[in-house]
Amino acid sequence: MNNYVLPIEKLINAFEQLPSVGHKTAQRYAYSVINMDKEEVSKFAEALNDVKENVHFCKICGNFTDGDICEICKTRDRSIICVLKEPKDVLAFEKVKDFCGTYHILHGCISPLDNKGPNDIRIKELLERINTDDVKEVIMATNPDVEGDATAMYISKLLKPLNIKVTRLAQGVSIGTEIEYADEVTLTRALDARTEL
Amino acid sequence: MNNYVLPIEKLINAFEQLPSVGHKTAQRYAYSVINMDKEEVSKFAEALNDVKENVHFCKICGNFTDGDICEICKTRDRSIICVLKEPKDVLAFEKVKDFCGTYHILHGCISPLDNKGPNDIRIKELLERINTDDVKEVIMATNPDVEGDATAMYISKLLKPLNIKVTRLAQGVSIGTEIEYADEVTLTRALDARTEL
Repeated sequence: MNNYVLPIEKLINAFEQLPSVGHKTAQRYAYSVINMDKEEVSKFAEALNDVKENVHFCKICGNFTDGDICEICKTRDRSIICVLKEPKDVLAFEKVKDFCGTYHILHGCISPLDNKGPNDIRIKELLERINTDDVKEVIMATNPDVEGDATAMYISKLLKPLNIKVTRLAQGVSIGTEIEYADEVTLTRALDARTEL
Repeated sequence: MNNYVLPIEKLINAFEQLPSVGHKTAQRYAYSVINMDKEEVSKFAEALNDVKENVHFCKICGNFTDGDICEICKTRDRSIICVLKEPKDVLAFEKVKDFCGTYHILHGCISPLDNKGPNDIRIKELLERINTDDVKEVIMATNPDVEGDATAMYISKLLKPLNIKVTRLAQGVSIGTEIEYADEVTLTRALDARTEL
């Protein structure tokens, strides 16, 4: 016998679609929804539909926006482009107060194992931006892993002939890391890029 | 500057209302919603509203149901009532295959610190059931803590004069616990209730 009534079961199934939400957590969420105010719940439901209906990609950078062009592309220095893998990476960068440039979201990285080639990510759009805007520098800020490095390398090879400065985020030991636990690849890169004091 | 567009921000706020969901998790959930199919999201929103509209308390036991009376009250032995604090406790008990009785959900426990007295939980409804049904046994399965014990004691004092057998879940060391880490209260109770082998 199933222990849930149908509406609860459906809601649990819905919550289970969220990242790293298992059955137990979904059940907890569903039960908490039953205890919410009716108004709160309908606002919640509205927010879900609203996001799906009104949020789409910025025509320039590919970040999420509810307009045609996002606030960052509208107001900031478009001559500096920071290339990121995913929209959520923007949130991390926006905490860096010094950065006044714009972003370009690739929506993925080149990854032959996942059948993702250069045409499956937003490289074409990046080249278009370079043709139209007066871009001085492209900062490759894809993840420091095999796919991220490969993507950064690929794009830099495309852009170098256009006389555009392409940089990559420095790689080394993170602040707060204990050297004892740092992996060998990180240490190798940190050694290679060591700076004089 | 706020880094989210309004629809995303609203959805993040909605997710933050769920139990133990902080900002970072809510953000992750919201971003995952953007990547879902439109149909899935509208089903999700529907499930939310549906639960709030169609799920209410069973008139007999107080558990969640979408009808008037829940399946358990309809089909099972009503002469045995297992008294629980919350609807989610039913899920745990339903895993016990031997139990064929019904439940009674108090929706809380007597807790003077939270200003909850006997009239704030469903004790009156329990007495009504005892008057109408032919109840043989009431099993007090409130949590083994101060409030749960006090509630069990209070109810048992109410029921004893009615000549109804009132039992309490055995308290002792849980299966799989290591004695080394068992607390003194648990050990004291386990000792007091020790059984002969």
